[in-house]
Amino acid sequence: MPVQFDVDPSVARLAEATAVFVREVVIPAERECGGSVHDAPEALRQALQKGARQAGVFAPHVPARWGGHGLDLRGQAVVFEAAGYSLLGPLALNCAAPDEGNMHLLEKVATEEQQQRYLRPLAAGESRSCFAMTEPAPGAGADPRSLRTTATRVPGGWRIDGRKWFISGANGADFAIVMARTSGSPGDPGGATMFLVDAGTPGMRIVRDIETLDEGLFAGHSEIVFEECVVGEEQVLGAVDRGFDNAQVRLGPARMTHCMRWLGAARRAQDVALERAGSRMAFGSVLGDLGMVQQMLADSEIDIEASRALILRTAWELDTGSAAAAQLTSVSKTFVAEAVGRVVDRSVQICGALGISTADAPLARLLREVRPFRIYDGPSETHRFAIARRAVKPYRQPRPLDAAGS
Amino acid sequence: MPVQFDVDPSVARLAEATAVFVREVVIPAERECGGSVHDAPEALRQALQKGARQAGVFAPHVPARWGGHGLDLRGQAVVFEAAGYSLLGPLALNCAAPDEGNMHLLEKVATEEQQQRYLRPLAAGESRSCFAMTEPAPGAGADPRSLRTTATRVPGGWRIDGRKWFISGANGADFAIVMARTSGSPGDPGGATMFLVDAGTPGMRIVRDIETLDEGLFAGHSEIVFEECVVGEEQVLGAVDRGFDNAQVRLGPARMTHCMRWLGAARRAQDVALERAGSRMAFGSVLGDLGMVQQMLADSEIDIEASRALILRTAWELDTGSAAAAQLTSVSKTFVAEAVGRVVDRSVQICGALGISTADAPLARLLREVRPFRIYDGPSETHRFAIARRAVKPYRQPRPLDAAGS
Amino acid sequence: MPVQFDVDPSVARLAEATAVFVREVVIPAERECGGSVHDAPEALRQALQKGARQAGVFAPHVPARWGGHGLDLRGQAVVFEAAGYSLLGPLALNCAAPDEGNMHLLEKVATEEQQQRYLRPLAAGESRSCFAMTEPAPGAGADPRSLRTTATRVPGGWRIDGRKWFISGANGADFAIVMARTSGSPGDPGGATMFLVDAGTPGMRIVRDIETLDEGLFAGHSEIVFEECVVGEEQVLGAVDRGFDNAQVRLGPARMTHCMRWLGAARRAQDVALERAGSRMAFGSVLGDLGMVQQMLADSEIDIEASRALILRTAWELDTGSAAAAQLTSVSKTFVAEAVGRVVDRSVQICGALGISTADAPLARLLREVRPFRIYDGPSETHRFAIARRAVKPYRQPRPLDAAGS
Amino acid sequence: MPVQFDVDPSVARLAEATAVFVREVVIPAERECGGSVHDAPEALRQALQKGARQAGVFAPHVPARWGGHGLDLRGQAVVFEAAGYSLLGPLALNCAAPDEGNMHLLEKVATEEQQQRYLRPLAAGESRSCFAMTEPAPGAGADPRSLRTTATRVPGGWRIDGRKWFISGANGADFAIVMARTSGSPGDPGGATMFLVDAGTPGMRIVRDIETLDEGLFAGHSEIVFEECVVGEEQVLGAVDRGFDNAQVRLGPARMTHCMRWLGAARRAQDVALERAGSRMAFGSVLGDLGMVQQMLADSEIDIEASRALILRTAWELDTGSAAAAQLTSVSKTFVAEAVGRVVDRSVQICGALGISTADAPLARLLREVRPFRIYDGPSETHRFAIARRAVKPYRQPRPLDAAGS
Repeated sequence: MPVQFDVDPSVARLAEATAVFVREVVIPAERECGGSVHDAPEALRQALQKGARQAGVFAPHVPARWGGHGLDLRGQAVVFEAAGYSLLGPLALNCAAPDEGNMHLLEKVATEEQQQRYLRPLAAGESRSCFAMTEPAPGAGADPRSLRTTATRVPGGWRIDGRKWFISGANGADFAIVMARTSGSPGDPGGATMFLVDAGTPGMRIVRDIETLDEGLFAGHSEIVFEECVVGEEQVLGAVDRGFDNAQVRLGPARMTHCMRWLGAARRAQDVALERAGSRMAFGSVLGDLGMVQQMLADSEIDIEASRALILRTAWELDTGSAAAAQLTSVSKTFVAEAVGRVVDRSVQICGALGISTADAPLARLLREVRPFRIYDGPSETHRFAIARRAVKPYRQPRPLDAAGS
Repeated sequence: MPVQFDVDPSVARLAEATAVFVREVVIPAERECGGSVHDAPEALRQALQKGARQAGVFAPHVPARWGGHGLDLRGQAVVFEAAGYSLLGPLALNCAAPDEGNMHLLEKVATEEQQQRYLRPLAAGESRSCFAMTEPAPGAGADPRSLRTTATRVPGGWRIDGRKWFISGANGADFAIVMARTSGSPGDPGGATMFLVDAGTPGMRIVRDIETLDEGLFAGHSEIVFEECVVGEEQVLGAVDRGFDNAQVRLGPARMTHCMRWLGAARRAQDVALERAGSRMAFGSVLGDLGMVQQMLADSEIDIEASRALILRTAWELDTGSAAAAQLTSVSKTFVAEAVGRVVDRSVQICGALGISTADAPLARLLREVRPFRIYDGPSETHRFAIARRAVKPYRQPRPLDAAGS
Repeated sequence: MPVQFDVDPSVARLAEATAVFVREVVIPAERECGGSVHDAPEALRQALQKGARQAGVFAPHVPARWGGHGLDLRGQAVVFEAAGYSLLGPLALNCAAPDEGNMHLLEKVATEEQQQRYLRPLAAGESRSCFAMTEPAPGAGADPRSLRTTATRVPGGWRIDGRKWFISGANGADFAIVMARTSGSPGDPGGATMFLVDAGTPGMRIVRDIETLDEGLFAGHSEIVFEECVVGEEQVLGAVDRGFDNAQVRLGPARMTHCMRWLGAARRAQDVALERAGSRMAFGSVLGDLGMVQQMLADSEIDIEASRALILRTAWELDTGSAAAAQLTSVSKTFVAEAVGRVVDRSVQICGALGISTADAPLARLLREVRPFRIYDGPSETHRFAIARRAVKPYRQPRPLDAAGS
Repeated sequence: MPVQFDVDPSVARLAEATAVFVREVVIPAERECGGSVHDAPEALRQALQKGARQAGVFAPHVPARWGGHGLDLRGQAVVFEAAGYSLLGPLALNCAAPDEGNMHLLEKVATEEQQQRYLRPLAAGESRSCFAMTEPAPGAGADPRSLRTTATRVPGGWRIDGRKWFISGANGADFAIVMARTSGSPGDPGGATMFLVDAGTPGMRIVRDIETLDEGLFAGHSEIVFEECVVGEEQVLGAVDRGFDNAQVRLGPARMTHCMRWLGAARRAQDVALERAGSRMAFGSVLGDLGMVQQMLADSEIDIEASRALILRTAWELDTGSAAAAQLTSVSKTFVAEAVGRVVDRSVQICGALGISTADAPLARLLREVRPFRIYDGPSETHRFAIARRAVKPYRQPRPLDAAGS
């Protein structure tokens, strides 16, 4: 069976329905929150999700058992790009971060009981969640092993103490998945455990909402303090001390779904630029006939096509459980995060003042949204480090003298 | 007399005093407006300017006759960089855009009477001004010759009709310098005239404040409509139909002073990154000992030094009235606008989540401020076009058939 | 049937056999010509092709009818990359430019008689060919429509007059495919015809071999003069005046096969760098543990994976006759040509003096070979122009006056 | 005294005379060696130097005492750029590497007797020299402290043993300046000493000439073996164990003079591209009117101007003995080496096939020459490391626990 890029007709139909829904329902709704998903009211979230259900495009990634379309990652690639064409699209389809990644994680590592209690309502859009891993310096940041939040055994469960920040969607979430150290010391490569902590559990407290450059995630990012926050044994998600492994279960696909959604945003920016290039006159011709503008437009087409090809390749590796998936995930995340940034930046440049105005075009907002993607989900530098290390590994030679033990 | 880079001791002292003033007075005041100069209250502007006067650093660029230090552009290069270290610094020293460029223009082309009425209070910080040239499509944008606002002779003066947007500082300005077409048609290379229009003149109306990516200019950017706005003959600034020439008087130095101020902002961003790199631990060492971070830090040092050298070179050409000044101004503006953008972008990357947080560091704000600089004052593409055209000119050959006269 | 990247087991076996053949037979033979394919003796070409036949890897792209493996472009993508790992590999497999593209062209547009006479021996490695299109200024270069070589009807055939240069493989070729203008004038979009011209036809004369930066093509590049070179009617290849269309038949796939072979060269360069990075000590650690080296290695892995994904995507579009193939061919050619250049350049940098030495590593040679790829087969600028034009087309608005019918 | 960029009239005259000499005498002579300085015959070197003496432009950097013009580095900046416009120019003026750097070193650290014996004929063009520091792995490369060649005390002098490679100008040199370890072990930051070794000294033997990508240095690069090579005490250059310090005396200015000469080569490449852009027609207009070509031309003008400004700034710091000189030397070397590479690369792209042809334009040769400059004299990565380390230093914080000694 040769290499091929067609998708199943059912996936193609879902993608087309998503594109129509985004164009006709979601984009018009952007006005209601000035394009800032962060500031979107809960009522808008519910209305959009209702619309998505009516359009038959809700929860494309969720297994049929939990009420979704059960797409694999290749199918998600096509549909999530269509959804990402509006920053509100993923929220409408209930496939936005961090809920989408949390659904995946719960499906893979939660007990049946945990799934019924947490995954079912989350998949249905009836609850929201957050993923509490990142900590302020000197805790877990680009290097997760620096984890400092601790979970200590107490009778019947665990006591969590520590501080997390940049926790997306925390404000208003019904539960948090919290990463805490159950053994070892900051810097150790193991010893982390995940916990399901319900909103309202004593000792878990949002201390502030962090104002950030991006405003594209519902409820934004918060800083959370855990002080003697006690949870029962049944709140452990996955095995004790296996938190870092479980994080990988979540992070690989989550990085790719981020890429898919952002690729849709890049396509939106490029389309705005193309529309401008096709109509705006300058220096005696239409913008799109000027060589330097053509160069920017062409470079963005190249960036978009290369991103799409890499995403599909990586989705296939992940879907088939290939050993190459980890390397390709790093490669794709790094490339796409930077490519998407370049595409939006060029669109802003082509549109000039219009690209800078927040009210007159979506570009200034998109520029703010895409920048952090080079930092979130592992900064480009961390991924490059991992890519290089894997590439060098088979060529690493024992040093003669060292090998001799001297 | 050989090439040399020292500045006069008096200039060096003024630069040092400015640096101290910015560090001790201006940066602490950033808290009062969340770093957004746009939203700074008028009282803060007045307090800062009072502080600058007390520190002896007010109006460095203004000729002594009008109460300033009378620096040439080389001197301004050093002092404005120090002022730009805070976005509020230029406002404090009364050397922010657009007032600074307007002072220069008024000094060069205004009548004595106009200078007494408009320049004197402007130089003293007692009034504010704006420069109304840019128009929405299909009017004057990257290509000023597309100018569509008209000024028609009426008895005793002129009637101005048209629409301007992205007019910085317009809201609350005491007067506007307005560019309007007095002859010819949109696309013609001449036929523009400048007018001094007082706030409150009937027919001039701010129709909206434009929310933009950047918020670093006092009072932001506005859209203005002129409908049968009549001004007297004495309000013509410079000669009739010489508006484009006069705009060049303003724009060359104004582009360079922009570069100087933004270079200070880049230095600030780099210093924040260096501070982080010197203290934050990751992967077993301090950030600043990691190769990829070192590469970013080094590239930013290179960008800053190259910018500084180009600015000084161009300032010298402008100060000495060299014919090469126009080309070097385009070269410097293009390079510095892009270099400053790269420096701030790298600083954000190095600082990670901290670089994205608006509350915890100035970087997210700076990132928003510097982006439009590649568009304002002539987009990079327009400058590159001009640079190439000048470079090719001596090599342009008559086409054989042309040479044959056919 | 979902997106998938596996290849048929038979193709995978052929690719693996090719890799083994290149490693064990071809790379050791590089010493015999100092790595310069240009200077390789005819005997080496024959010996390598004999070896390829014995290894069962000869002519992977040639239809079974003519003695090859009959791979489609997706299959070629995998096998040609393996062949390109040595500059001599494509020569050994008889899939090097320009013969490989000419075989494709002959298979698509030649008559049965022409195929028997020209394609059969060419596919068997018994003859060599060239493709004579490019002309010195002001003739056909980046813009093929500038074609100036003429073919004029004479009794029983055509008389060709003109000058061609940079004609790869011309020296020693058994025949040339020559593009000449049969109607219209230089600049016209049509009017070209292809001719099969046997070596030794009076009036066709190689006037010089052009010394170039690259030396990776057998027999190098020549300049050819046509003076009253008469050929019979049966030497017309394809229809009269359809030469530009036929050129597209050749050029689309030919651009992609170039990409495939060069990707193999990039992989070779990266492997040399990885080997160095895994063993060379500097500043107290192995090179591959230094951050800036890691960054280069990672960027090259990214460039290689993105190139591979784009090539496969485009090969699929071409294999399935998709309308999107033309755009993706331009996208891929532009990206891969630049990516390959970056990869080799980084490898040189990582290897330092070793990267510069022609005798001690293949990198200095590869650097010279890959540079012209950004110019050959359409310079990047021409492709970007085409990409942008296609992207803008649906957004192009009729200009108001045009719409009014004036 | 304010910042200023004028040079003394005498320097301006010397630069102009150099430009005329290069244009009228040196460039026509390029044909005699196919542009390859490496392959230039000794007779050509002598003829060109005679011509330079007659034109009054010989030895611009040499102090008057030794027969030159005694220019400081700022003066050299202007004159060396003019000389570098042809690869043969520096050879003609006797200011090519490595002799030029060796003259500077001898002037600064040699004894009077050594100067009479080595510097006098070298400055007069009557002898040639080389600088033998770089060693094959695992010896001194990017990291000089890895020095492995040893010099051991023997009665009356020193015995040198080791291997050096990439020693420019060694073949035919009258003497070598050899760096050898007199104390400590490979990796130690000190312990090196310089020795003057006459050609013909028993035990010093050139084992091969290394074929490299670049061919722009007279006599190319060689590999040298030292086996029981004994020299007398009077052959020590500078103090024993101070070799690394003395290397800095040579390397700082030598890096800048490299930049100056290469900037001339970049200017040459850009002028070739401009000439092409002003005359070659494509797609209905002259190349220089196409936007993407304009972008390349403009970017090269920017690179050239920024390089020039940085070189002058750094020359001033070195001339005035500023503490900032070391950092600015690294900044300038890194920027200029990369900028020069970009300029030549763009020129090749603009000229298309002509840029690739070795016989038809100087660009293909220049492309080969400039590439190694990013590796020679310290690879860009080593300089970036040094730049970052200096920048971070004032921000480096003692780690609390370390500081406490626990």
